Amino acid sequence: MESKTRPHVVIIGAGFGGLNAAQELHAAEADVTLIDKRNYHLFQPLLYQVATAGVQPGDIAYPVRTILRKQKNLDFRMTRATGVDVDKRLVLTRAGDIPYDYLIVAVGGSTNFFGLDSVAANGFGLKDIEDAVGLRNQILSMVERAMQEPDPDLRRAMLTFVVVGGGPTGVESAGALSELVRLVLVKDYPRLNIKEVRIILLEASAHLLAAMPERLQDITYHTLLAKMVEVRFCATVTDFDGEKVTLRGDEVIPARTLIWAAGVQAASFAATSGLALGSMRRIIVNQFLQVPEHPEIFVIGDAAHFEQDGRPLPMIAPVANQGAVIAAQNIRNILQGQPLRPFLYKDPGILATIGRNAAVAKMGNMEFQGFFAWILWLGIHVLRLVGFRNRLMVLLNWAWEYFFYERGVRAIMPNIEKQIKS
Amino acid sequence: MESKTRPHVVIIGAGFGGLNAAQELHAAEADVTLIDKRNYHLFQPLLYQVATAGVQPGDIAYPVRTILRKQKNLDFRMTRATGVDVDKRLVLTRAGDIPYDYLIVAVGGSTNFFGLDSVAANGFGLKDIEDAVGLRNQILSMVERAMQEPDPDLRRAMLTFVVVGGGPTGVESAGALSELVRLVLVKDYPRLNIKEVRIILLEASAHLLAAMPERLQDITYHTLLAKMVEVRFCATVTDFDGEKVTLRGDEVIPARTLIWAAGVQAASFAATSGLALGSMRRIIVNQFLQVPEHPEIFVIGDAAHFEQDGRPLPMIAPVANQGAVIAAQNIRNILQGQPLRPFLYKDPGILATIGRNAAVAKMGNMEFQGFFAWILWLGIHVLRLVGFRNRLMVLLNWAWEYFFYERGVRAIMPNIEKQIKS
Repeated sequence: MESKTRPHVVIIGAGFGGLNAAQELHAAEADVTLIDKRNYHLFQPLLYQVATAGVQPGDIAYPVRTILRKQKNLDFRMTRATGVDVDKRLVLTRAGDIPYDYLIVAVGGSTNFFGLDSVAANGFGLKDIEDAVGLRNQILSMVERAMQEPDPDLRRAMLTFVVVGGGPTGVESAGALSELVRLVLVKDYPRLNIKEVRIILLEASAHLLAAMPERLQDITYHTLLAKMVEVRFCATVTDFDGEKVTLRGDEVIPARTLIWAAGVQAASFAATSGLALGSMRRIIVNQFLQVPEHPEIFVIGDAAHFEQDGRPLPMIAPVANQGAVIAAQNIRNILQGQPLRPFLYKDPGILATIGRNAAVAKMGNMEFQGFFAWILWLGIHVLRLVGFRNRLMVLLNWAWEYFFYERGVRAIMPNIEKQIKS
Repeated sequence: MESKTRPHVVIIGAGFGGLNAAQELHAAEADVTLIDKRNYHLFQPLLYQVATAGVQPGDIAYPVRTILRKQKNLDFRMTRATGVDVDKRLVLTRAGDIPYDYLIVAVGGSTNFFGLDSVAANGFGLKDIEDAVGLRNQILSMVERAMQEPDPDLRRAMLTFVVVGGGPTGVESAGALSELVRLVLVKDYPRLNIKEVRIILLEASAHLLAAMPERLQDITYHTLLAKMVEVRFCATVTDFDGEKVTLRGDEVIPARTLIWAAGVQAASFAATSGLALGSMRRIIVNQFLQVPEHPEIFVIGDAAHFEQDGRPLPMIAPVANQGAVIAAQNIRNILQGQPLRPFLYKDPGILATIGRNAAVAKMGNMEFQGFFAWILWLGIHVLRLVGFRNRLMVLLNWAWEYFFYERGVRAIMPNIEKQIKS
C-alpha cells in the first residue's frame, strides 16, 4: 500500500478535525493513515439527544471507512494510539508501531472533572456513546423505579436530575431532559406526579452560555425557567456520592443523577505524548499549528493549545474543522516547497438550542432567538451530519418528536454482557 | 389503583404472548398488572437484523408503557419475577410480592445450549438485544482486526463465522451475514480478500427448515449455496473454545465467531416456578392452557407445554399470540361464569427469508419462493412491528439497504461501561 517514495502522513483521531484533515489530503502526493480506537466518526453535538432518547446511537455514529471509501491514498486502522516516539517518528499503538513523516494529532477532548473523583465515579459525562447510552438508561430507569418507590423522599431523589455547567451542552441537556419528562414520559406514567420532578442546572459563574451576548443569556435563562428547569448561578459542586449532590457552602441536594457538562480537557493521549502542554493539557502549537520543536507534528482541535487575541481557542467543532484545513494545507505546502500559512480562526457564530421552537444564535453582529434560531440550529446540524442516510433518519426522528410529542428511543438496554471475544 | 372488589390478573412477560393477553383483557372487569424485567417489548424475529447491522436496537424495541398507554385497567411494573407462591397466590419479584387472583405466565424462551458450557461461554445466542449487539460488535470487530493481522491462518479464523442450527434463525442469520460481508463490507475494506471469508451453517439433521416441505428445503439450500454459505448436514458441535469449533468425529474448524441458533427452552422462571414441567422445561398445561392443579394459573407461548396432534407446539410467535387470546378469554369466561374454551392452534403458515429477494413460505397448501415470498415476508414483518414509527424506520432502513447495498448500523459500540446507578 505504501510506496517508499511517497511521504507518509499519519492522523490520530477521526473526529471533526482528523476526518476533515484526511479529506483535505485526498489529492496530496502522500499516503495517509488515519487511526482511531473506534470504527466510527461520532457527531458529538447531538450526543445529548441520544442521552434524552431523541435519536439512536447509530444515527450519529458513522463508519469511518464508509465516509472515506473513495479516498484512494487513505488507509484506516482501528486501534488505540498510546504514545509517540518523536525521535524515531513512530506512533505507538496497541497494534504495533506506525512510522510517519508527518503527524496530525487530532485526538479531541475528554470530560474534565477537575479532580472531583466522586463525581467522575458516580456522575455522567457526555463525550461518547457509552456516556450517552448509560445516561439514557439511568434517566429512564430512575423514572421507572420511582413509580415503585413508596418513600416520597427516595422517590423525589430518583426524580431529581442535576445538570452541572451552563455552557451549550448543559443548557441543551437540561432543556431536552425537561421536555422528555414533561412532554413525553408523563403520557406513559399516569401516576407520575410532575411536581416531584426536578431538573436543576448548576452554573459556577453568574452567566449561562458565557460566549453569548447578555441579551441572549437572559432569553436562555427565561426559556429554561419556562420549561421548569431550576437554574442556579454561583453554584459549585464539591461532591456527588450517587445519592446526594454537595455544593460549596455545604448545601446538599438529594439526587440520584448528575450530568457533568462543566469541563473538557484534551484527551489523555496529549498528556502521554511527552510534548509541551498548555492549559487543559492541550499541546502547545505555533502559528502554523506545528509543535515548535517538531515541525513535522501538527496538532489541531481540542488537543491544540493555540492562542488568538491572547486566549486559547475554545474546544468546539469549528476550531477543529478550520485547523484541519490549515494543517493539511501546510503539509501539502511543505511537500511542494511552498511557504506555510498561519492559522487564523474565524468565528462562524454560536448556536444553542433550548428545546422545542427555542434556540439562541449569534452570527457576527446578528442575534437570533426563538423559532427562527431553532430552525437555523436544526438546518445546520442536519446539514453537517455525515451521510445522507443519517441526515434523513435524524430529520424523521425530529419531525416525529415535534409533531407527536414523542421520543423514539425509550428502551432501557442495560448492558452488553457479552463482550467482543477474540 | 386496585379496588378490593375487582379481581387482579397478573401477567409475567411482555413478549408476544403477555402483551397480547394484556390487550385482550382491556375490557375485562379486572385490574391487570403486567410485569417484565425490561421496559420494552422486543420484536424478536428481527433480532438477527440487529446482529447483522441492518436495523438499530431501538427499531425493534418499543416501550411497554407506550404500547399500553390507553389501557385504563393496566399497570406496568418493570421488575424481574423470581418465583411464584401458588398457595398464597403471590408472584415473587425483586420489587416485592404481588398478589394475584389469576396469573398468566408468558415468560418466553431462552437459548438452550444443551449443556455445552464452552459454547455458552464463548458463543453467541440470539434471544435478546444484548446478544444481538454483542454479536454485531463481534462480527464488525473481527473484520476490522483481520485487516491488521499478518498471519493468514489467524486472519482466516477471524473471518470464519459458524452458524449452528438450520432452523429459521440459523438460515436467516447465515444469509444476512453473507450479504453483510459480501455486498456491504467489501466496499469499505478494499484489502479484504473475500475468498478468506467463510460462513458455515451447521445442521445436526439432514434438513434445513424442518417444518418446510422438501421442495422449499432444497430451494433454501441452493439459495444459501449461491450466497456462498457452506451448508453442512449431520454436523454436531461438541466444543467451542473461542478459537476453534469442534464437531462430533473430532473435526476442527478454526473460527472466532460461533452463533448458536440450535435450541430454545422455556425461560428459567418456568423451572423455578415449582410447577410440573414437560420437555424443554416448559410448564405442562391442560386443554384450556391452565396448570392442572392450579386452574387460576394460565401458561402461554414458549413457556407452555401444550400437546397437539401428539407433539408439543413449536416455540414461535403465532403460538404465543393465539394462546394469549384463549387464556385471556378463559379468564373473562371464569369471571362471567361461562364455560372455558379449549385451545386449538391454527398454523398460519411459516416463512423464512434467506436474503435479498429470497425467501420461502408455506401457507396451508400453498408454497411460495423467491421474490414474491420475500415481499410477503417483508410485509408481514413490517405490519406486525409494534408502533407506526418503528414500522416506518425499519421500512426505510430496508429500502436503503435494498437500493444502495448498504447497512446502516455498522458502528462498533463495545460496552456501556457506566451502568445504571442508584
